[in-house]
Amino acid sequence: MRLRKVKNAKITLASHPNHVVIDPMNHYGAWQKLFSNHHPIHLEIGCGKGQFITSMAKKYPDINFIAIEKYDSVLLRVLEKLLKEPLQNLLLVHIDAEQLDKLFSKGEIETIYLNFSDPWPKKRQEKRRLTHPNFLEKYRSVLQPEGIIQLKTDNDLLFEYSMMKFNHEPDFLIQRISLDWNRECVHNVSTEFEVKFIEQGKPIFYIEVKLERTDR
Amino acid sequence: MRLRKVKNAKITLASHPNHVVIDPMNHYGAWQKLFSNHHPIHLEIGCGKGQFITSMAKKYPDINFIAIEKYDSVLLRVLEKLLKEPLQNLLLVHIDAEQLDKLFSKGEIETIYLNFSDPWPKKRQEKRRLTHPNFLEKYRSVLQPEGIIQLKTDNDLLFEYSMMKFNHEPDFLIQRISLDWNRECVHNVSTEFEVKFIEQGKPIFYIEVKLERTDR
Repeated sequence: MRLRKVKNAKITLASHPNHVVIDPMNHYGAWQKLFSNHHPIHLEIGCGKGQFITSMAKKYPDINFIAIEKYDSVLLRVLEKLLKEPLQNLLLVHIDAEQLDKLFSKGEIETIYLNFSDPWPKKRQEKRRLTHPNFLEKYRSVLQPEGIIQLKTDNDLLFEYSMMKFNHEPDFLIQRISLDWNRECVHNVSTEFEVKFIEQGKPIFYIEVKLERTDR
Repeated sequence: MRLRKVKNAKITLASHPNHVVIDPMNHYGAWQKLFSNHHPIHLEIGCGKGQFITSMAKKYPDINFIAIEKYDSVLLRVLEKLLKEPLQNLLLVHIDAEQLDKLFSKGEIETIYLNFSDPWPKKRQEKRRLTHPNFLEKYRSVLQPEGIIQLKTDNDLLFEYSMMKFNHEPDFLIQRISLDWNRECVHNVSTEFEVKFIEQGKPIFYIEVKLERTDR
């Protein structure tokens, strides 16, 4: 994603505590309380400008959505969408995914979305990829039994890498794979990237993984 | 593969017992004896006209190769290649892959090649796909511990299906995946299909799987 640094982004985010959670770690294990209901929680890691997560939140009012994003200037774009059209079931968090296991307690999340994550193609950047085993370990910790990870990417290297890494964790069971997600899924909720890639005729790769309850 | 029925194909095959094994089930557990050495055995299931397996046999004289093919008219093409240029380390078998576990004893095979297998795209044909769980069970039985399966295909549905099925068997560990095998592999030994697809600019998908010694 091209980043344009927005002045005072942090201050603007902090001034909308009904949309942006300022003290996220204080809600560890108690996120449903913040939503004032017992609906399941779905999490997007790296929400970008928020097209996917705001559409999902509109479409599924009985699910609580949390969108985390490490770039404040980008998260500000999601906040702007929410200021125009508030959504009670969507909260934003300005944080790095590295902190995930400090944000959520064991089993607190039902579904994780990884949409067009940075592929970090160089070998020395491997640890930053959101399907590196260190991240999978965090997902395992915060997902509930039979929780789901949905990954979409246009990057074949990230797809290959992610398939391998999911396969090497015996409790992550691949449920669905597609080399042309757009062909298959007419009711798909799209991200900004997806719309662009579909217009360009580029295929979108999809992986859906379920966390198994017990070891296979 | 387009099939042209060749008259007397069976008789021609049977008249070259030094290349075509007529009584394959009699060699169950004793294939190395037939090769008169102790080299590892690599097996191609559905060898087509044999470009891949004859090139492999030439390139790797210290490996014993067995090529099985269910269509006699097709296997005849491989025999013709061998009559022009005999290879001591390659034997042909006219048989259906269904019979695999009657041909080889437990652990007799080091590597299995599945090259551009028929994708059998219809749901009711699923059992015929060479990565159906029934076939994986046979491969598990004939492969030695840490034995390898290498799959190449141009068919995205077969690739997706095979990835899923390998993933669902905890002792088959995916070692390598590629969405563009030709990009990666300059020393690749090609099949007839592969040469054609590369000329057409079509990507070739690749999966390499290792049979783990113990349950994960």
